[in-house]
Amino acid sequence: MARILDVEPLTSESFAPFGDVIETAGAETLLINEGTTQRFHDLAAIDVGADGGHPITSIFRGQTRFTKTGDVIEIKMMERHPLGTQAFYPLQDHPYLVVVAPVASGVSPTDLRAFRANGNQGVNYKRDLWHHPLLVLADGHEFLVIDRGGLGDNSVEHCFSLDQGIARIDLTAGD
Amino acid sequence: MARILDVEPLTSESFAPFGDVIETAGAETLLINEGTTQRFHDLAAIDVGADGGHPITSIFRGQTRFTKTGDVIEIKMMERHPLGTQAFYPLQDHPYLVVVAPVASGVSPTDLRAFRANGNQGVNYKRDLWHHPLLVLADGHEFLVIDRGGLGDNSVEHCFSLDQGIARIDLTAGD
Repeated sequence: MARILDVEPLTSESFAPFGDVIETAGAETLLINEGTTQRFHDLAAIDVGADGGHPITSIFRGQTRFTKTGDVIEIKMMERHPLGTQAFYPLQDHPYLVVVAPVASGVSPTDLRAFRANGNQGVNYKRDLWHHPLLVLADGHEFLVIDRGGLGDNSVEHCFSLDQGIARIDLTAGD
Repeated sequence: MARILDVEPLTSESFAPFGDVIETAGAETLLINEGTTQRFHDLAAIDVGADGGHPITSIFRGQTRFTKTGDVIEIKMMERHPLGTQAFYPLQDHPYLVVVAPVASGVSPTDLRAFRANGNQGVNYKRDLWHHPLLVLADGHEFLVIDRGGLGDNSVEHCFSLDQGIARIDLTAGD
């Protein structure tokens, strides 16, 4: 038994319960540097200071996770970071997928929401938000990542039980 | 009178007095997410907490600043941010220029160093480092920027005096 997830377009409105969409569209815009630079200002609520944490900047390079048939992704687990937000911004202009579940819940396949992000949209997961690890649609897709460094246990994983089953994203289906 | 700046290739070694080069080359690498993601870990010493500051994430979209002849950039001023680092990572794979001067000095055209960054290299300016505002080589080049939000005066500009003169980057010259 697998729940098939609808894949929704990513918008700041639809994603608001889960975090920020990092994009120029709709942003506060300042003209700086003698008018030569547009600053799309303060696009993500970075929150990494808990328990002495600090921001760290990394690059993630992802590989696709399709099943052997090539067009299905199985969602078998989720993770969350209790001590800090985690922001991803794509470094190549490819779409990618984001799978999340509400902060406060336990998590099961029936809680999941899936979004398709464009290559000019980043996401910033709220602290403690259930999310699936990186789901790229092109091998080697890279992201600038801003998350929390410091002591403390900042990672919780939940693998779905046999009773819970799994979820599937079928990329041959229309949105 | 103008000093002509040599443009050096950007490397972590040559840039070390000024800050970090954010790039996968040479980085500590972790394999995460069941082996599907390479994490190039902790690439920039973000330092934005002074006086109650916090990290903010923005997108900068730059326009070129060539003189009318089209191949020269004039460096007439520099700026620094006393309260925090400022990191830039390019969102399209174009080269760009970085002009800096040592932290401790006053600043004049004779102090400047110019670097050519590739489109897969970001920079993180040390706190209080003299640097020139964004110098793109392609109109519309965008950067993810991580700098400091919060109260306090975090911007100092110095326009070169007539006695100091200016500096020039001549892109028709070889490196």
